[in-house]
Amino acid sequence: MRIALDAMGGDDAPAGIVDGAFEAAGEGRDSLEVVLVGKRDVLDSYIAAKGLAAPNVSIVDAPEVIGMSESPSTAIRRKRDASIPVAMNLHRAGGVQAVVSAGNTGAMVASSLLQLGRLPRIERPAIAIYVPTRENGGTVLLDGGANSDCDPHNLLQFAFMGSVYAETQLGKASPRIGLLSIGEERSKGNELTRAAYELLERSTLNFVGNVEGRDVFAGKVDVVVTDGFVGNVVLKFTESIIYYITSLIGDEVRRHALARVGAGLMRPVFRGIKRKLDYAEYGGAPLLGVNGVVIICHGKSSSLAIKNAVLAAGRFVAGGINDRIRRKAEETEQ
Amino acid sequence: MRIALDAMGGDDAPAGIVDGAFEAAGEGRDSLEVVLVGKRDVLDSYIAAKGLAAPNVSIVDAPEVIGMSESPSTAIRRKRDASIPVAMNLHRAGGVQAVVSAGNTGAMVASSLLQLGRLPRIERPAIAIYVPTRENGGTVLLDGGANSDCDPHNLLQFAFMGSVYAETQLGKASPRIGLLSIGEERSKGNELTRAAYELLERSTLNFVGNVEGRDVFAGKVDVVVTDGFVGNVVLKFTESIIYYITSLIGDEVRRHALARVGAGLMRPVFRGIKRKLDYAEYGGAPLLGVNGVVIICHGKSSSLAIKNAVLAAGRFVAGGINDRIRRKAEETEQ
Repeated sequence: MRIALDAMGGDDAPAGIVDGAFEAAGEGRDSLEVVLVGKRDVLDSYIAAKGLAAPNVSIVDAPEVIGMSESPSTAIRRKRDASIPVAMNLHRAGGVQAVVSAGNTGAMVASSLLQLGRLPRIERPAIAIYVPTRENGGTVLLDGGANSDCDPHNLLQFAFMGSVYAETQLGKASPRIGLLSIGEERSKGNELTRAAYELLERSTLNFVGNVEGRDVFAGKVDVVVTDGFVGNVVLKFTESIIYYITSLIGDEVRRHALARVGAGLMRPVFRGIKRKLDYAEYGGAPLLGVNGVVIICHGKSSSLAIKNAVLAAGRFVAGGINDRIRRKAEETEQ
Repeated sequence: MRIALDAMGGDDAPAGIVDGAFEAAGEGRDSLEVVLVGKRDVLDSYIAAKGLAAPNVSIVDAPEVIGMSESPSTAIRRKRDASIPVAMNLHRAGGVQAVVSAGNTGAMVASSLLQLGRLPRIERPAIAIYVPTRENGGTVLLDGGANSDCDPHNLLQFAFMGSVYAETQLGKASPRIGLLSIGEERSKGNELTRAAYELLERSTLNFVGNVEGRDVFAGKVDVVVTDGFVGNVVLKFTESIIYYITSLIGDEVRRHALARVGAGLMRPVFRGIKRKLDYAEYGGAPLLGVNGVVIICHGKSSSLAIKNAVLAAGRFVAGGINDRIRRKAEETEQ
């Protein structure tokens, strides 16, 4: 299996990305080939300086780079030789089976739509984010930020794509679908969620109704559906409150001598929780609904996150998720 | 000062509410009178059984109760003798200067609009939630859930009401206003936020641009503006992730003997953080934009939360927040 990795995208590019590529290549061995897409001279000299070598890592040259805050639509039009579109074209041509990037998310979405196209009956692709839960093996939230304005049919499509994700990647039978809202009753929510509620209820999906934050973290559902604005806001809040609480603990510990000893004794606890909550462990988020396997990583991805994302891309390819989405789309009433 | 307290609203009503009323009355002494609004027989027997007595607590009878999950509009129309509308009528007639309730939020909003009306130039009232931050003395987020669907002008009005809150109640000069979105650039967000961005930028408010979760908890702004759907989702996520992390710590501590000792030593730390994050300490959230002082409390409010809410109501009355909102509305271009 060949996976293209955007070597120029992300805050830690290219160093952290290249390191992650070699780590993944080491773990994946014979079954995996990582194709680094980026400025060949930059990559060659980094690899030589670090003395990295692996038979299953290769480079495809992409002389341009799309910056993290560039306008996606403009960048995609003007920079055809940037790492993201070059990787997507490679995927479309069958040269790789997946594309992984920690670069400009909007550019990834735009380039996926342009170069790979959508799956039949999917109007909008969605970013599917794995959320660790206290019980029941995690949940998938979508859309994590590909579509800021959605209509009810988009949410229905997110629901069945999420259902396929939960089946194929999380091993869940008949995944329970929840609609993110502000109260359990069907009347609670906004115009969008009330209309989506009706569509979900009429569908063949295992829709269990509205859910709120506590249901998500408790693992009450396997799929959480929301528009990309709310999904992205919520993910960023979740991430930052984890950092906030950690900082508060640090502030308080510094003020209490005995608590410093206690914090030392609790180190394995904090380490276990950090591992559970760290997105780096979960390997990026697939953009579902495009005609290919596209994995979007956090801009701050470390080499660990990149390694896990490349390995996750392999699992998405192996799981045949797109064939299942195609079939599910045919079955689902819309 | 006389404050009406809905004795029948909230998961712990009437016991926790009545206890909170007497605690507030004890702290407020001569300057405060708490008027319990609810079923007189139920309240009388609870007060007698507990042996509670205070010269500055009285009862106004309201023979009906609006349930927590009743449809607000129907309930307000049909149950004119329920504690919420009775308290609001008392406020309108000048018998009290504020109303506090942990009951049905939708009914509180509907009854406030019907019985008290709106302040001039305010189209929609908003729930203003105090959010503790690591630095800079907290921020106020609105709307916390009164309006699920908003237009850009609503958000502009929330911004100046929040600005007045931050000035009068948090003592901040020229409060910094942030628009909750999914990226700093003005192009980031959804249709609503992009349009609201333009209005905020043209206003006389101290608008600093888009903010995300990390900015909120870091105290980068004094006011966070968003629609009531997103605001409510975010607040519930924040609340439940605090519970989730606490639970994860508990799960892990039970598995490590030494960590149990560590947790014991860290107790003052956890207590300090719990106090910082506990909404019960902050005393409910005002519904801003109505012609009166209305404080909405969490449905799970304890007697401590109710006590703090009653005392906070007193501060809102004393701060003259509505006169300031009236003036600010006249000054602000719309």
